Amino acid sequence: MALDNIFSSLKKAQAELALQNRGQKDAALKAVMDAIEKGRGAILKANAADVEKARAGGMKEALVDRLLLNDKRINDIIEGIDTVVRQEDPIGKVQAGWVLPNGLQVERTTVPLGVAAIIYESRPNVTADAFSLAYKAGCGILLRGSSAALESNRSLVKAIKEGLNAGGGISDALALAESGSRDEVDEILSARGKIDVVLPRGGKDLIRRVVENAKIPVIETGEGNCHIYVDSSADIINAVDIIENAKLQKPGACNAVETVLVHRDIAAVLLPLLAKRLAGKVELRCDNFAKAAVGAPPQSLLLKDAAEEDWETEFLDYILAIKTVDTLEEAVTHINRYGTKHSEAILTNDHRAAEEFERRVDAACVYTNASTRFTDGGQFGFGAELGISTQKFHARGPMGLEALTTIKYRIHGTGQIRP
Amino acid sequence: MALDNIFSSLKKAQAELALQNRGQKDAALKAVMDAIEKGRGAILKANAADVEKARAGGMKEALVDRLLLNDKRINDIIEGIDTVVRQEDPIGKVQAGWVLPNGLQVERTTVPLGVAAIIYESRPNVTADAFSLAYKAGCGILLRGSSAALESNRSLVKAIKEGLNAGGGISDALALAESGSRDEVDEILSARGKIDVVLPRGGKDLIRRVVENAKIPVIETGEGNCHIYVDSSADIINAVDIIENAKLQKPGACNAVETVLVHRDIAAVLLPLLAKRLAGKVELRCDNFAKAAVGAPPQSLLLKDAAEEDWETEFLDYILAIKTVDTLEEAVTHINRYGTKHSEAILTNDHRAAEEFERRVDAACVYTNASTRFTDGGQFGFGAELGISTQKFHARGPMGLEALTTIKYRIHGTGQIRP
Repeated sequence: MALDNIFSSLKKAQAELALQNRGQKDAALKAVMDAIEKGRGAILKANAADVEKARAGGMKEALVDRLLLNDKRINDIIEGIDTVVRQEDPIGKVQAGWVLPNGLQVERTTVPLGVAAIIYESRPNVTADAFSLAYKAGCGILLRGSSAALESNRSLVKAIKEGLNAGGGISDALALAESGSRDEVDEILSARGKIDVVLPRGGKDLIRRVVENAKIPVIETGEGNCHIYVDSSADIINAVDIIENAKLQKPGACNAVETVLVHRDIAAVLLPLLAKRLAGKVELRCDNFAKAAVGAPPQSLLLKDAAEEDWETEFLDYILAIKTVDTLEEAVTHINRYGTKHSEAILTNDHRAAEEFERRVDAACVYTNASTRFTDGGQFGFGAELGISTQKFHARGPMGLEALTTIKYRIHGTGQIRP
Repeated sequence: MALDNIFSSLKKAQAELALQNRGQKDAALKAVMDAIEKGRGAILKANAADVEKARAGGMKEALVDRLLLNDKRINDIIEGIDTVVRQEDPIGKVQAGWVLPNGLQVERTTVPLGVAAIIYESRPNVTADAFSLAYKAGCGILLRGSSAALESNRSLVKAIKEGLNAGGGISDALALAESGSRDEVDEILSARGKIDVVLPRGGKDLIRRVVENAKIPVIETGEGNCHIYVDSSADIINAVDIIENAKLQKPGACNAVETVLVHRDIAAVLLPLLAKRLAGKVELRCDNFAKAAVGAPPQSLLLKDAAEEDWETEFLDYILAIKTVDTLEEAVTHINRYGTKHSEAILTNDHRAAEEFERRVDAACVYTNASTRFTDGGQFGFGAELGISTQKFHARGPMGLEALTTIKYRIHGTGQIRP
């Protein structure tokens, strides 16, 4: 189908979906869960074809792993839809209501944002996650996955549509953009009045391209140059555990730590312990003071001098930059300069320092005494997530259903006119 | 000052302002009210110079009136700031808070959006309105008024800054862009990372230009192709009153009605009365059925055939388009096709019809039995307003302080790491 026909079909379906209540939407989503279960074999087969083609084309194994589906991952997809079913309906909530002096009754209610488009890379689970959140929020969704995952996505979308049809749902509320061309993306990014928001989900280049070219609203996601600041009052053992976790539990995640800022008063105690813990696993890029504080490094430690660009880089790798600071103020200034407003942490036993850090750091999520790895819709209890917004406009931080809503004022009168 | 220096000065000032509490911000705003009172003579003098220049340059009197300040309007400006002082502080509110199974405490709090820019036409009161709302919301603001109002704006900004200095405020939290060049606007629209949102406030061309060129978030305001649908069950006399009010109380306002949709069952009763009421004041552009229903028109009535473009046009003038429909469904379809999602009304005594209309019409404000002219921050009780958002993203409808806020998650742990 030509993209323009898809746009109008989505818009029409969305207008109907917007009127459905929670019971209707949940019943349809449950039928989708059944349909994916029933389609498991076909989905795995389609995915195997994508994977085979990707390997034949020389795709790196790490990327193949993102593309790969197996029984466990199909289970996760089904479970993800179930968590969305269990979420409250975000639509039709009365956020506020008041009566004006002239007797007009004003109600502020939540309504669906409209039709969303998601442009994403190879992970096929995003197909089901994005669909289920959009459906529950009463939104249409255009899925534009990577061409490497085309067969998997086709097969998933087919199962979803079968489920919607079986469960009394509206199967035109989702559509897959299949051409894989750049033109297709450009057409989506220019669809003013047809697509209400576009969500790029993937690498930095994809996000930048979308942000720079979109003529429709975008929610930027994902880039995370995250910091942990270890205050002079921090618990040292705990600090080593948290830094290790924030770096190593999943180095390729956007909420992994990239630079640790250490108060100079504790550098000589903390850094040798940290170096020992990370030796053989993580390359450290240190400023001079930090390098001196590490002392005689363990033999297996990769220790380098930090360069200016290290402060700016989201490594997404087994690399950690370390900078020492004299004050909390200096740490905050560094973070507000180099950070991407994603997730920032302070480790401290000083409540005033924590409060100051929380107030001054400009980021979606600010942590005291915890790993930055918790910035995640699932961890936050939102069920599936649309991504993590790194912008301040419309949505910020892990995005669940609310990011796909807007408001409508309903005003009830008895013939009022304006004097 | 070069614009780039202004950007960094605003950002720095905003970071400080973000930390101030309500008492500090209100004290500064009260001092600004005093300073404007004290500067009244100088402001009026500067305005007189702008007005003289405008008239000499051949500006139309309607536009000169927008530019003009007088004692009454200065009073209104001061009173507008007072309403902002009386508003609750939108910052630092805990919107939600919960504890995760691992003991992490998550709090969702409101914080300032950052630095806003407003690009507006000649009305100098916007200078004070926009400043006071931004200041109360902890935001910096860049004011880019029209060059016709330059002396007035300079004089107002001078008084505001004097007030801020006298009241312990942060006078760098506002700045006036003075060059008046197109390049200046382009530089503002490209200021990614420096300006967090831009608000165009003025005519359609200005808004379109900003929306099409901005590389930073925009809130579209103002264009209102508003409708009133008169259902077959409506009270006829009341309908005539409401339509007259919505068209004539201020025809140049964005919330004035432009097209009336009339159920054919009552057209023959309503339209002759409406024609009589509007004769000599408003030109009617009718479809065939409506024209026939008007019957023998009063002599002073200007009656024309409606053309397709009349359904699309925001007249902002003494012109009203009239279309007849057979069903509510037809009215809703027309509105969702031609409307600008601003303000839409149904006049009816049928609750089901009202409910159906409210649910199906996609607009910021949907009225039952009232004039569309109430869509306004002041009327809604928000104090001053930044404008009326006609988009669904981030802010919708009359915008008060909330439109200048975003959220920050504060997460408190005791050493949690992600398993």
